[in-house]
Amino acid sequence: RPPQVGILTVSDRCYLGTQEDSSGPNLKAIVEQEQGLAGQVVKTKIVADEHSQIQDALINWCDEEKLDLILTTGGTGFATRDVTPEATKAVLEKEAPGLALSMLMGSLQITPLAMLSRPACGTRRNSLIINLPGSKKGSQECYEFVLPGLRHAIQLLRGDNKEVEATHK
Amino acid sequence: RPPQVGILTVSDRCYLGTQEDSSGPNLKAIVEQEQGLAGQVVKTKIVADEHSQIQDALINWCDEEKLDLILTTGGTGFATRDVTPEATKAVLEKEAPGLALSMLMGSLQITPLAMLSRPACGTRRNSLIINLPGSKKGSQECYEFVLPGLRHAIQLLRGDNKEVEATHK
Amino acid sequence: RPPQVGILTVSDRCYLGTQEDSSGPNLKAIVEQEQGLAGQVVKTKIVADEHSQIQDALINWCDEEKLDLILTTGGTGFATRDVTPEATKAVLEKEAPGLALSMLMGSLQITPLAMLSRPACGTRRNSLIINLPGSKKGSQECYEFVLPGLRHAIQLLRGDNKEVEATHK
Ligand code: NA
Repeated sequence: RPPQVGILTVSDRCYLGTQEDSSGPNLKAIVEQEQGLAGQVVKTKIVADEHSQIQDALINWCDEEKLDLILTTGGTGFATRDVTPEATKAVLEKEAPGLALSMLMGSLQITPLAMLSRPACGTRRNSLIINLPGSKKGSQECYEFVLPGLRHAIQLLRGDNKEVEATHK
Repeated sequence: RPPQVGILTVSDRCYLGTQEDSSGPNLKAIVEQEQGLAGQVVKTKIVADEHSQIQDALINWCDEEKLDLILTTGGTGFATRDVTPEATKAVLEKEAPGLALSMLMGSLQITPLAMLSRPACGTRRNSLIINLPGSKKGSQECYEFVLPGLRHAIQLLRGDNKEVEATHK
Repeated sequence: RPPQVGILTVSDRCYLGTQEDSSGPNLKAIVEQEQGLAGQVVKTKIVADEHSQIQDALINWCDEEKLDLILTTGGTGFATRDVTPEATKAVLEKEAPGLALSMLMGSLQITPLAMLSRPACGTRRNSLIINLPGSKKGSQECYEFVLPGLRHAIQLLRGDNKEVEATHK
């Protein structure tokens, strides 16, 4: 079964309808590419930059929908309303600092302003959650920085023992 | 209005007067350079390596003085008395791992001992707090590693919407 | 006195005896090399991937045995049973993100799958704890990435003031 993916757009303006969500649909197209993750985006949602809305969506997609991978886009910056990393860390059971590092290191080679990104990454139950930036360009770039590890991470979270053994040989 | 900056020197010896604070005044001069941040250092203080003294100073400068930027220097290493990162994390509302990463990556290119630095960075209300090392050389180097992002971070924390839009285009 | 070191192997299979522990003995040999840390491995133990077993061993080696350095190997990945970083963070008093960063940056130059490693590093009282991966190859590589800082870290944790002064000059 292909990776089951949810894409959560976090943006006051997209939530209110005063701005079109370009990042979410773009991520959906990239996630489903055959030569990439070849995932199946089964959930998409737009929430406001509100801690409770973000947290509720993440918990539902992890605990009820049991998605393999959840990508958020937006709310990772320095504006007062940017709370996506805090809402994410509140629901994570395990942090994955290597994924955040890969995104930051990759982004810093594109622009020094990447030092202001504050992504959180990690797992809750069998789901992997990754915070991507809000812009279409930035979210696609960061997704591509972590793509090399996604399939393996999902196999480990699904409990594929052959994969586990391969990493310990 | 230029960025309003506070510089907090954390050092038992400087606090007791048995050593001169060379890092604090040096940082003040650099912060106020026209070709750099062109900030205004409105608060300077020397505290001991005591969790409560550090925490109280940070809370006051964030919540009462409403400074844009607080630089600490000292107390980020491995000695038993080094507690600046712990006191800082206790008051932060949001962590900014990309700033800490920029300092560590930059410092590691100068000396492998930079791996022993433990800086915390992040925001409380509308203030950005950055832990710099205690040495004059190290604190200046680390300040310069994050300088490219400081003006933008301060504009976002002040709620400058034009800046917010620019990052999401 | 040479650095007093403990090596904790975290692995369900090694604990049950269905797999031989190759990483622990290999780390012991490397730690004791004269041209390296020249440490003395005074404690070795194999525990299951259980939060409480890991935590109890770490607390004992820090608080009772007063070891200078504790290396763990195993349990830092994405499998459900991998809880070494969580058990480690539960006992740490201070985190040392620069050590984790040095391991991740070094490992990422060897394989992109290093982005799935989740090492925690830091101190409890006067002991330094470092999470290494479970594989023999990966644990040796990561040990070597942090080796340049270990002697200095141990001297600082022991309260060697000459070393403290050197870093602040
Ligand atoms: Na943390």
